[in-house]
Amino acid sequence: MIRFGILGLGNIAHRFARSAQLNPNVTIEMVASSSQAKGEAFCQKYGIRHYTQDYTQLMDHPAIDAVYIAVPHGRHAVLVEKCLHRHKAVLCEKPLGLNAAEVSHLMQVAASEQVFLMEAVKGYFLPARDQLKEVLKQGAIGTPLYLEANFDSVVPYQKGKYLFEKGQGGALLDVGIYPLSFALDMFEGDPVVAQSKLVMSQGIDTYFQALLNFADGQSCLLEGSIDRARPRVALIQGTQGTLEIPYYYRCQEFTVTSKGQSQKYESSWHGDDMSGEIQEVVSCLQAGLLESRLHPLCQSLKLAQLLDDIRTKAVCFDVG
Amino acid sequence: MIRFGILGLGNIAHRFARSAQLNPNVTIEMVASSSQAKGEAFCQKYGIRHYTQDYTQLMDHPAIDAVYIAVPHGRHAVLVEKCLHRHKAVLCEKPLGLNAAEVSHLMQVAASEQVFLMEAVKGYFLPARDQLKEVLKQGAIGTPLYLEANFDSVVPYQKGKYLFEKGQGGALLDVGIYPLSFALDMFEGDPVVAQSKLVMSQGIDTYFQALLNFADGQSCLLEGSIDRARPRVALIQGTQGTLEIPYYYRCQEFTVTSKGQSQKYESSWHGDDMSGEIQEVVSCLQAGLLESRLHPLCQSLKLAQLLDDIRTKAVCFDVG
Repeated sequence: MIRFGILGLGNIAHRFARSAQLNPNVTIEMVASSSQAKGEAFCQKYGIRHYTQDYTQLMDHPAIDAVYIAVPHGRHAVLVEKCLHRHKAVLCEKPLGLNAAEVSHLMQVAASEQVFLMEAVKGYFLPARDQLKEVLKQGAIGTPLYLEANFDSVVPYQKGKYLFEKGQGGALLDVGIYPLSFALDMFEGDPVVAQSKLVMSQGIDTYFQALLNFADGQSCLLEGSIDRARPRVALIQGTQGTLEIPYYYRCQEFTVTSKGQSQKYESSWHGDDMSGEIQEVVSCLQAGLLESRLHPLCQSLKLAQLLDDIRTKAVCFDVG
Repeated sequence: MIRFGILGLGNIAHRFARSAQLNPNVTIEMVASSSQAKGEAFCQKYGIRHYTQDYTQLMDHPAIDAVYIAVPHGRHAVLVEKCLHRHKAVLCEKPLGLNAAEVSHLMQVAASEQVFLMEAVKGYFLPARDQLKEVLKQGAIGTPLYLEANFDSVVPYQKGKYLFEKGQGGALLDVGIYPLSFALDMFEGDPVVAQSKLVMSQGIDTYFQALLNFADGQSCLLEGSIDRARPRVALIQGTQGTLEIPYYYRCQEFTVTSKGQSQKYESSWHGDDMSGEIQEVVSCLQAGLLESRLHPLCQSLKLAQLLDDIRTKAVCFDVG
């Protein structure tokens, strides 16, 4: 049994709690939030016994094996580090750090403290991803060469919400990892950012687009936003056909089209779209691993470096 | 009065005839088509007196000042050249040639014969384009930096139709000039093709995408297809705002958004969306010009070179 504590009780913490309830090897021992009302409501809703306003109290609690970090982006690194020093295993919401320097530092701390650390990127742990990779490997669309993936949404501006705060807000930090991690999962090798652009508004990026090239000629066009809506979908084109993957980051089905024929593949989650990620932590801890083999820390670092590169190389459009 | 002859009586010839009827300085003297039924129906519909199945007869006719060439792409160059040698002014449907070599050759013939030649790219002659350029120049969106334009459509496969014939068919030759000419009209300088891709089916490209970079850091992402549908729109992003131009190739309105405020601009055609193009031929011929100043032949050559480059550099996806 893995006994979790949760830091931060926003939307994603609710999803974690619901999903954790589906896993017989997981309990949530304690949650922490600065808001007492939030904490009490959360405990009542999910039948959790302990609530604290003091994050340190949770991190020090001897009955806790692992901490799920679900606070705003800007506080990830400092809280991850505190947990690691206390020898608590950590599952941290993406992005693990605000930049590659933060991620690199956390990797060193995890290694020196010999504690498990994983960035919560649900997509890597879905059954459909294995099926997708198998279909690609079998040559269903010939040689895969081009990938498009977007994560667009309209988030109404809310003063004080961390998503709109300079430094920790913006589309790239919030949703950039979705299309980026998908591309890294489907294509092999290290891509370089050929071109990128950001639409900036009040100091944060509300839209990004990036073109990445892989050494062997593959390329991908990635997009994400908090200022526009369109269906979230990934597309992979190969020399012999096309793969279409709706909601690729929580994928349950995809369609292969080749030579005018379409075939649909389906594969359900075991539980919900977060179950794979939670089970991965359980499996790793039970096996005594310090990293996930499906989403190791070097991959988190690569994602952070690509996010940095997209930001650095971007042509910026400040729309005020 | 400019007396036109028309070679080829497909859809675009019908649009030309309708538009020509709106111009008091234009008559259509004669039309030519290999199909007698088409020819007779066309003459009856638009009140045209002469029809021939013999293209040479039309090109030699002394009562004709200018020839409008509306035959399939692959025959443009040879017919343009014949008309020029007979000292008939030529308005040729886009693309003027299948590649830069053809266009370059026609430029030389036009120059040596001292005859007017123009590629029919309607978009260059729309009142809204002047308005657009004025709005950009006045800094309504700050410094314009990025442009997106697409021309997507689903054309059902039709055996024998030139659009599906290897050599003269495909999306790039058919609609590539729409987004390309728009980009060249909005941004200054000569772009280079940074990256492109083609989806190939049965020997022709059914989709293209191209990323072009301008020397001063501006870039554009262009797309066209005959295998998918989405609204045809152009978008220009600047440091201070965004310009949205629906149906940019026959533009009547556009919207400027800056600092959260949107403003819509409207400007009707004089006549229809082809009227500007036809009037340009009339004005040039009346003024004794050998080229349009709004769409000179060096620009046609640039378009053809870019189409060649997009084709040469493209990553190709042969979907069978």
